[in-house]
Amino acid sequence: MTHRRPPLGRHFLLDIAGAPFDLLDDPIEIEEALVATVKTMRAKILGIHVHRLAPQGISGVVVISESHLTIHTWPELGEAAVDLFTCGDEAAAKEAVTALGPRLRAGRTDIREVLRGVRD
Amino acid sequence: MTHRRPPLGRHFLLDIAGAPFDLLDDPIEIEEALVATVKTMRAKILGIHVHRLAPQGISGVVVISESHLTIHTWPELGEAAVDLFTCGDEAAAKEAVTALGPRLRAGRTDIREVLRGVRD
Repeated sequence: MTHRRPPLGRHFLLDIAGAPFDLLDDPIEIEEALVATVKTMRAKILGIHVHRLAPQGISGVVVISESHLTIHTWPELGEAAVDLFTCGDEAAAKEAVTALGPRLRAGRTDIREVLRGVRD
Repeated sequence: MTHRRPPLGRHFLLDIAGAPFDLLDDPIEIEEALVATVKTMRAKILGIHVHRLAPQGISGVVVISESHLTIHTWPELGEAAVDLFTCGDEAAAKEAVTALGPRLRAGRTDIREVLRGVRD
């Protein structure tokens, strides 16, 4: 049996569909959703960038200590891609990502979890 | 046969090991590596944050239009986790991520590619 080290981090990949155009195109709404997600994780924000793209769409990143949260939205498709990379508490991270789909009023949210770090 | 839409974006997950402590703990070296990666992609940087953590380690994010590049380093382990999410040219993105392991003088780089967007 191979001895395996714990993963360096956990990475949640969320693909969201069926969300309202106006919400996905609003930088304030998106920033509030990102900040709420980090608060649910009880983590500390080191930096945040939210950009509105032309003709529509938002790109946002939050730097958290040893972690990050990012979002890209396609309002014209009702879709968004969210990434949460975390080295913190797993249960709090799961709670945070699970809350994000309903917060963005998504019709569908696919969540994948990837363990990070080189594997044996 | 199901008609499938093209993916919203391509996401490269790099797990790096065997890199030198000093390089992984140097915010200037890490920022230069991030900027070089974006240049290889011929993309435009909208924002960049590089933080040095205590007692060691770097967290860095770059916002690119509809894309992002992030890194977290663990100098004490010789490891780093890099993410490149891109909606741009696939070949340029592959060239950029392939160059990153040697640039960080990694002994090993595992690259995974994930197609983003809800799946049928």
